[in-house]
This record gives sequence, C-alpha cells and structure tokens, in this order.
Amino acid sequence: MLINGNEYKSLWLEANRVLMIDQNKIPYSFEIKAFEDYEAVIAAIKDMTVRGAPAIGAAGAYAMALAAAQAPDEKFRSFLRMAKDKILIARPTAVDLANGVQSVYESTLKFIPDLVHARQIAVLAALEFAQKSEEDCRRIGVIGQEIVPDGARILTHCNAGALATVDWGTALSAIRMAHRKGKKIFVYVSETRPRLQGSRITAFELEQEGIPHAIVTDSASGFYFWKNEVDLVLVGADRVCLNGDIANKIGTYEKAVLAKEHKIPFYVAAPLSTFDYTCNHGSDIPIEIRDEDEIKRWGDIQMANPGSPALNPAFDITPARLITGIITHRGIFKPKEAAQKTHQSHS
Amino acid sequence: MLINGNEYKSLWLEANRVLMIDQNKIPYSFEIKAFEDYEAVIAAIKDMTVRGAPAIGAAGAYAMALAAAQAPDEKFRSFLRMAKDKILIARPTAVDLANGVQSVYESTLKFIPDLVHARQIAVLAALEFAQKSEEDCRRIGVIGQEIVPDGARILTHCNAGALATVDWGTALSAIRMAHRKGKKIFVYVSETRPRLQGSRITAFELEQEGIPHAIVTDSASGFYFWKNEVDLVLVGADRVCLNGDIANKIGTYEKAVLAKEHKIPFYVAAPLSTFDYTCNHGSDIPIEIRDEDEIKRWGDIQMANPGSPALNPAFDITPARLITGIITHRGIFKPKEAAQKTHQSHS
Repeated sequence: MLINGNEYKSLWLEANRVLMIDQNKIPYSFEIKAFEDYEAVIAAIKDMTVRGAPAIGAAGAYAMALAAAQAPDEKFRSFLRMAKDKILIARPTAVDLANGVQSVYESTLKFIPDLVHARQIAVLAALEFAQKSEEDCRRIGVIGQEIVPDGARILTHCNAGALATVDWGTALSAIRMAHRKGKKIFVYVSETRPRLQGSRITAFELEQEGIPHAIVTDSASGFYFWKNEVDLVLVGADRVCLNGDIANKIGTYEKAVLAKEHKIPFYVAAPLSTFDYTCNHGSDIPIEIRDEDEIKRWGDIQMANPGSPALNPAFDITPARLITGIITHRGIFKPKEAAQKTHQSHS
Repeated sequence: MLINGNEYKSLWLEANRVLMIDQNKIPYSFEIKAFEDYEAVIAAIKDMTVRGAPAIGAAGAYAMALAAAQAPDEKFRSFLRMAKDKILIARPTAVDLANGVQSVYESTLKFIPDLVHARQIAVLAALEFAQKSEEDCRRIGVIGQEIVPDGARILTHCNAGALATVDWGTALSAIRMAHRKGKKIFVYVSETRPRLQGSRITAFELEQEGIPHAIVTDSASGFYFWKNEVDLVLVGADRVCLNGDIANKIGTYEKAVLAKEHKIPFYVAAPLSTFDYTCNHGSDIPIEIRDEDEIKRWGDIQMANPGSPALNPAFDITPARLITGIITHRGIFKPKEAAQKTHQSHS
C-alpha cells in the first residue's frame, strides 16, 4: 500500500525482527514498531498494534519464527509448543492466528532434530504463509472488483483494508481495484465503535488511495439504506465456517440484516487464512469480549457514565443466509460452498 | 427525577428566568444554567444544553415567555413574531419545539393590546404547555409499564428519559414505572454516537433510579438480538406523523429493522407535544444534519482521519409498519391510529 507516497506492508519479517505499522497511532502519527521477542508480538496482537484477521495471522506466523530463533537448543520442541500455545490465545475470534501459528509450528517440527534447518524453515514457513495471504488478498481485489458496479455507493464496516492484512486488504482490495479500473465509486465508512477502525484506518486508507468516501456513525447506515443510497455492502471476515456463517467485527450482523431488508447485495471477502475447516457453524466461534473501558473511556477521558457497566463484544456472527457471496482468491462463491470450493483448490 | 437524592425537573421557569440542567455536562458534572434572554435559550437548544424533543418543546415555550417579557411595548407583536420565527428554526426535527412556541404565541396574541395581561398569559401558557407535557409523560409511564413483562430485557436508544422531557421521560418513564412496580428488568443502553446521550445520560438516569443496565455500542445490539437476549425495544420520538411514521435519534430505524427480523416488539413512547397533525408521512419530516466535527472530534481531541469528510444526520425515520405500538397518555395505539386517537381526545 502507498502511505505518504511510499510503499509499505502492514507488517514484515526482516533479519529476525518483526516490523509493523502501529495501527493504534493511525491516523494521528505514522510509526513503525520492531519486535525481536515473540512475547512482545503477542502483546502487540492483544493491544491491537496489529489488528485485522489476516494481519494477525501473519503476526502469529512471524511470532513463531521469532520463537524458533529464541528457543534454546536443549528444549527446542517444548519451548516451541509453549510459544504456540501462548500465541494462540492472544485473541480468540480470528482463525487466521491459529492458521498462521499452526502452519509454522508443523513445518518446523518436521526438521527436528536438525535445529539449524528447523529455525530456517520456521522463517520460510512464516514468510510463505504471509505471502500466500497477501497474494490471496490481491486476487480477491481482482476478482471482487467485478461485483462493484460503476457508480456504486458501497457501505463497508471496520477496516478490511491493507492494514488489516499483509497488503491490499480484503473488502478494500476489491474497492481499491474497482477504483483503479476507473469505476466511479463512493464509500460509506461506518466509524466502528469502540476503537474506530473505520473512521481512523479505513478512512485513512481511502484518502491515501484517493477514493471518494465519507465517515458515518455506525447507527447512520440504516438512514442511507432508507434513502436508497447504498447499492452494495462489502466487508471482511475474522472466520469463515464450513456452513458459510462468518464472524466479523461487531456491527456486521446489523449491516447484513439491513441489506436483507432493502434487498441490497451483501458480500464478504476473505483469504484462505480466514477459513476454518473445522468449524461447522457460526455459533461455534468464540466471541472475544474486550474491556469495558474501550467503550467508557477514550484515552484518559471519561466518555460514559462512570457508575454504569458496559458490555464489549468485539465480534458478531452473520449467518450464511444473509450473505450474497464470499469473495475468495479462487472466485466468488455462495456462502455454503465457499469452504468446500477453497479447500478443494488448496489441497 | 431524583439526582443525588434531590428532586429536579430538566428545566423550569422561575421569576422570568429559564433554568435548565446542562445536559452537555452530564454525567461529568451537575450544573444548572439560568437564562433571562430568549436568544440565549435558542443558543442552549442549538448547542444541546437542553435536548430531547419534549424538553426542547418546553424550552421553546419558556423562551417565548421570556420574549414576551423582553418585547418593547411599542412593537410587542412584531418582536414576538420575530422571536417565534427565530426559536422555530433552532432545531428542525422535533415538532415539540414548534408546538411549544405556537401554543404560547397564539395564547399571547389574543390579549393584545392589553400587554400586562399578554405577558402574564405568555408565562401561564408556557407553564401550561410544560405541565401538560410532563403529565403526559407520567401517564405514559403508568400506561407503558403494562407492556413491560417481568424479567424483560429491554433495548433503548438515545435518551428518552426525564432529562429529555420536563420530567419522567417517555420510554424511560415506562421503564421507571415498571421498575417501581417491582418488575425485574434489565436495560441495554446503546451509547448513541456521536453525542453519547445513551452512555452519558440514559445510563446516568438508570443508575440514579437503581435499574440494572449495561451500555453497549450502537453496533452491538444486533449481537444481543442474535443471542435472543432482547425481549423488547422501547424508544422515544422527535415527531409522530398522521400515518404513524416517526422520527427519532439516528439509529432508531436500525433497531426497528432488527426487531422485525427477530419478531421482537418495538414500541415508541410520545407525549402529545411530539405529535404533528399536519405531517402525513415520515418522508415529510426535515432531518437535521449536524456538524461533522461531532463525529470527528471529542472536545479538542481528533478521533477520525482528519482528511475525510463525515456525514452527520441527527435523526432517522422509522416507518409505521415496523412499530408495534405507540404509547401515549391516552393509551397504547397501533401507529396508524395514534394521531387520530390522541387528536380526538385532545380536541
């Protein structure tokens, strides 16, 4: 992605260091953080320095490569298993994290007891996982832009952009490619409380790309549906199940219900790293409940009534029946077929 | 209403001064502002020192009483007409403002040229309007609590509480009375971006009343519907049309669509001051578009991407077909009948 005219990925691996754009600072400042310790990467996943399902998948894979470098020779295997287990619980909802971690872990184990090789393989497997996810996202853009009509007014939620992935984005990859093809589009960006990934990050990416857009509150999308000013909803996902149910940022389900009410297409874009081939139904997906202070405070400022509790689920489930199609690197599928079709092509 | 153990109304008229609780400061501090100039009351309506349809109706009526006191003898009539026109455009969506202003204006004109009497009548008409609105709200509570089942988990949006009215509230009046009857209820309070009337004011009122509740982001209500943890939606209104369409705080329409999807009752509570007997359809209601900085900033703090525009409609329209019933001081009516039934009883 271009940021201030320079080409960046949201995170990358370089000489046993993981580097990432600090997403908590976007758009207020642009800072790159570097990590040499896998446990520091776990902290960065938890505090959302890196966020977005495909991006935390890559962060998990990179953290495993660091862990392999850090693991003492005499207890390489147990150290790596402990690191894997710690990384896996950093955040529960996006399956990309588990997919990234497992793929590095399994590749690495094969080369024990040759530890020089095992550590190299950990790096290679992490790079391969991230590159595959990035390439999936680029393909999602090429394929996904086909369902974006010229003149479309698109609603997106949260940030499914380059910063949520290694590069390109998922929903925003399709939007980006449609724009680059010369289609005149307009994007409603719902601000995405409580952490404002929409108004902070998606709006930032769209401005960088020169795509016309406006921020709206999460509550205002219904008004624009009612005015017949939304033609298409396009979002990312944190997990895609076998039956086509998906988890995504809290608020996605409401957008899907509104799209159904107004007979507007509702598309989900996801790379292979977001598919969970062991998950049958959306109701099987663990929903992360985050701290109430994300709602009640902004930094040091009290925003809500101090004596009231707040409930802060970070994700919700959108059932397959509300999804028009899932955009993948292999094509656009009916939700019920997406897992099967991508799995076949993968194996 | 009880605040810190003392009995208050949200605003009142006293010796040619309008006093009001500063709602921009709730819950951070509790301050009473006093106004002797009707134009200062207009500013307080615009900057939302006083907000909530019935409350700004009373504020408009009180402002007219101040204007009558301020009007010079030699141009009483023209001064009053100018004052009326200025107050009417302070905020466009809630019809209570027009109803409050007109009722004082018309009562007062009848007593010209006896200006001593006319000024007294302006005060009496303003007090009568506010007292009627307050009494409607109390009755709404008594009648409305009947549709609140024991054990109900209620979703409300924005603040339809005592602070949005002269006293008691509309939706919150029914909730308050249900609680006082001993029903065990729980209230989901959607925070109501961008000005957080839910998480600031409704949460504050519920805490003061000792009613169990939790703040959720506006986007999260769908999640609790999906979990079958919402039994009832109860909101206020800024205008009720002849056909039963209503205007209310932005986001209300989304709640109504979700309630329909989940077959959950959706009730609107409104005093007579909120009925517009000249408005045929919701699409006739002017929707106030407020400054984008309400979304992009919190006080001095930049929250959103600075280079991105934001759209800030303050209200939306919920069509009659999505409304289970409208709770009035005369009973609970099907939306299509509410205007007719309340009008008959009034005239």
